[in-house]
Amino acid sequence: MSASSHFIRRIPEGEDRERLTCAECGYIAYENPKIVTGSVVSVDGRILLCRRAINPRAGFWTIPAGYMELGETVEEAAKREAREEACAELALDGILAVYSIARIGQVQVLFRATLARPGFAAGAESLEVRLFSWDEIPWEDLAFPSVHWVLKAWREAGQGPLGAPRTNPPEDLRGIRPLAEGV
Amino acid sequence: MSASSHFIRRIPEGEDRERLTCAECGYIAYENPKIVTGSVVSVDGRILLCRRAINPRAGFWTIPAGYMELGETVEEAAKREAREEACAELALDGILAVYSIARIGQVQVLFRATLARPGFAAGAESLEVRLFSWDEIPWEDLAFPSVHWVLKAWREAGQGPLGAPRTNPPEDLRGIRPLAEGV
Repeated sequence: MSASSHFIRRIPEGEDRERLTCAECGYIAYENPKIVTGSVVSVDGRILLCRRAINPRAGFWTIPAGYMELGETVEEAAKREAREEACAELALDGILAVYSIARIGQVQVLFRATLARPGFAAGAESLEVRLFSWDEIPWEDLAFPSVHWVLKAWREAGQGPLGAPRTNPPEDLRGIRPLAEGV
Repeated sequence: MSASSHFIRRIPEGEDRERLTCAECGYIAYENPKIVTGSVVSVDGRILLCRRAINPRAGFWTIPAGYMELGETVEEAAKREAREEACAELALDGILAVYSIARIGQVQVLFRATLARPGFAAGAESLEVRLFSWDEIPWEDLAFPSVHWVLKAWREAGQGPLGAPRTNPPEDLRGIRPLAEGV
């Protein structure tokens, strides 16, 4: 935002908080939380993870996930991300978790999924994609705290019907811990 | 957006779709789906609805819900909306539904809730707030299709533990029906 000289922060008439406003034309650029959607994909009990080719956290492992785009449903976005990052076609099973990361204005809607057809490969944003058994998961090299959270949620859910989605864990109910602490 | 002369739509280097970009400084204003959060609030089996004082759909009935703000969790946002629109303090029970309204770039995260303490009243954005038994719900005068969807989801869920959240109904899987058809 600092790259632009046009926008200032001010409280528009009838509102109760500052909004990013164009100093010239008055256009208000509402800044809202962004939705990340992704999936814990399992294949015969093993979990698909992608090693990130891009920052933030290049070189670290994550589930296929990313920012939802306009014109999509959450389900379509989750499938698109798996296609882009892991060249994988998913069958979504249901919503496993909904996390709020208030520190960075994110809501994560994460699914439980399997492959709709066999096969996967590293997409443009991944260095490699592979399956991990539970005991092989590289806990020290996961990209984000919520990857830890959702893998544990997947494990706890077992293979039966999904119950209510998991939410933030007790140690970070608002999603405000910095990365280094949370990982 | 038409009020601003600074922004143009173009495909930034390394991306695959047009983004709103400042013609002068190159700042990209990413446009992402927005999150609406709200609650089906019941009191002794009756449901709390608010008659909207503001557009869109002024005069029509809805659940307390609205746009999530930066720095909130989805739970905090749902509680804030109930406070603002119905002067009500909620106890959230869990996520009842997650709907995508692709036509307008919305994701709705809707909770099942009760009152944390007795009492409610019309807030600034409501003409009136009242409780409806199931047979009294003003189906013809509900503000949005998703209010229909979530009230039916609430009814179907019964009063036991919440299962996996409901998603869009079969007749509008992507949330693309215009308002008049959906209501």
